[in-house]
Amino acid sequence: MQETVKVAVDAMGGDHAPAEIVKGAVEAVKTREDITVYLIGRQEAVDAELAKYEYPTSRITVVHAEEVIETAESPVHAIRKKKQSSIVIGLNMVKEKEADAFVSAGSSGAVLVGGQVIVGRMKGIQRPPLASVIPTEEGASLLLDCGANVDARSVHLLQFAQMGALYMEHVIGVNNPKVAIVNIGAEEEKGNALVKETFPMLKECENINFIGSIEAREIPHGGADVIVCEAFTGNVVLKLYEGVSSVMLGVIKQGLLSTLRSKIGAILIKPALKETLKKFDASQYGGAPLLGLNGLVVKTHGSSKAKEVTNSIIQCIAFKQQRINEKIKANLEVVNEKEQRR
Amino acid sequence: MQETVKVAVDAMGGDHAPAEIVKGAVEAVKTREDITVYLIGRQEAVDAELAKYEYPTSRITVVHAEEVIETAESPVHAIRKKKQSSIVIGLNMVKEKEADAFVSAGSSGAVLVGGQVIVGRMKGIQRPPLASVIPTEEGASLLLDCGANVDARSVHLLQFAQMGALYMEHVIGVNNPKVAIVNIGAEEEKGNALVKETFPMLKECENINFIGSIEAREIPHGGADVIVCEAFTGNVVLKLYEGVSSVMLGVIKQGLLSTLRSKIGAILIKPALKETLKKFDASQYGGAPLLGLNGLVVKTHGSSKAKEVTNSIIQCIAFKQQRINEKIKANLEVVNEKEQRR
Repeated sequence: MQETVKVAVDAMGGDHAPAEIVKGAVEAVKTREDITVYLIGRQEAVDAELAKYEYPTSRITVVHAEEVIETAESPVHAIRKKKQSSIVIGLNMVKEKEADAFVSAGSSGAVLVGGQVIVGRMKGIQRPPLASVIPTEEGASLLLDCGANVDARSVHLLQFAQMGALYMEHVIGVNNPKVAIVNIGAEEEKGNALVKETFPMLKECENINFIGSIEAREIPHGGADVIVCEAFTGNVVLKLYEGVSSVMLGVIKQGLLSTLRSKIGAILIKPALKETLKKFDASQYGGAPLLGLNGLVVKTHGSSKAKEVTNSIIQCIAFKQQRINEKIKANLEVVNEKEQRR
Repeated sequence: MQETVKVAVDAMGGDHAPAEIVKGAVEAVKTREDITVYLIGRQEAVDAELAKYEYPTSRITVVHAEEVIETAESPVHAIRKKKQSSIVIGLNMVKEKEADAFVSAGSSGAVLVGGQVIVGRMKGIQRPPLASVIPTEEGASLLLDCGANVDARSVHLLQFAQMGALYMEHVIGVNNPKVAIVNIGAEEEKGNALVKETFPMLKECENINFIGSIEAREIPHGGADVIVCEAFTGNVVLKLYEGVSSVMLGVIKQGLLSTLRSKIGAILIKPALKETLKKFDASQYGGAPLLGLNGLVVKTHGSSKAKEVTNSIIQCIAFKQQRINEKIKANLEVVNEKEQRR
């Protein structure tokens, strides 16, 4: 049997906390035997939710946290002041190696800041990127950086590419993932200063399968498995993806309800449509990992329901068992050695 | 009667040239009396298309152009070498005031480069932005810069905002348009270095209705009328918009055809769906103007059919009759005076 992976989960974070978070954690320990979960939050509230379920009780432990960081709070201030919050306690457990990973649907800012400040960056990693799995026609792609650090430099993007490729290969299971950089044209001479500087570095990098530029239009078609960009661009891509899909579905729904004839049609198409739209949903791959830290920190959507929480917890197993951080370290050493030889 | 507007049209540019371009031009002169069109292209080919239609012949003139710039060519090289191309001839007509505007569905790069090199920038405008009208739930928004100049600075974005607001108000007809800057969070302290520097300048600018940041998620919901960003971001937004919509429609179509039941439903919903999807299509507003030049240059989609060509030609009328360039000039003078007073 594989080693057990210990996952700390923020029971108080997200729109549906603690109910859906607790439900997701229970589902996770029932699905996988090689996992134990620490549910961090107000003991009473979490216990009350847990009491609703039958589950292997030895594999869920409640860790009391007096405070909650709200999404409206300043992340830096909150991390510094709210030492008894579920986020700070969870991140400290990863730092102290009491947990292998921390999963939160709470304040993105606090998780990003806290991940870097409390858990800390791996030696050699300057900017730990937030990596999101986005749905495509072909399945899914990993987009990074999605918003951890703006104004990154080329050397950071090179690290994003390497970390992203390892994650995509060993956690998501894509063999020899195709890596591309977001650009505004397919040719090598296109792009802004950052892309022009980064492109040849990616091209020379031996431990990734770099296929060149990807235009934003091609991203939803699944033209690349790992899509590298600076965090401002990444965040725009991620959020526009959500915005356009949601507006398109709204417009279509409005069309379906506009006439009696279309209403009847809508009833007939509903099951089939639901089935195919499910494919265009990346929540099965779990949340967004913050890569390059001394441990794993995963941010899931604030709107996460139990299923996404379960998937986010389960993705931590592969991350640990596949020793992604050791692989990242080994890859960085290869790069550093090459640089020293020059 | 209003003055007549002279529009030079690239009859050879785009996937459906010259047939759809000529058809669109014919439709334009039939729709509006205050317009004359110069169709620039191979005389024989254009004449053959024109012969298919009845129209006021005095208002369409064919201007022979021996050469065509292909989309694969280097724009800078093509503009320099192909003096007899439809794009170079058309842009020269605008430069020499023989035409008020030039419309092309041909090589984007050549139109952008040629617009700046041949027609030239207005005094005081450093980076003429490409402005695209994008569809939203509420109607449409103007996004600029969509790809004319990457690595812009804050002062350029300030000019984009002012030019965009004038265009949206006087050409598209939105009263007191709301102007926003693309950002990765709603708060003023969010963003990359460029956005942080530009935000207070937009806030202080008295001749625009600045409403603050807009997150990419809100763009399709129509949260702002004029959306300002640097060209790399703008191009990513524009192309991702197209990509996500097209993949979503594909996924939905696949769902509709997956079962017999859904196929019957699809037949019933088709007319209503087509009607509402039409609303989510910005081609009625014409092509993308390159703002801040000594004349108007409009780039329409390479895939443009007659309808979009007609709309692109017609939008030139409002641009000229509303004296957008004079208004841009007056606005810039206000800004410059203020700067001198400081």
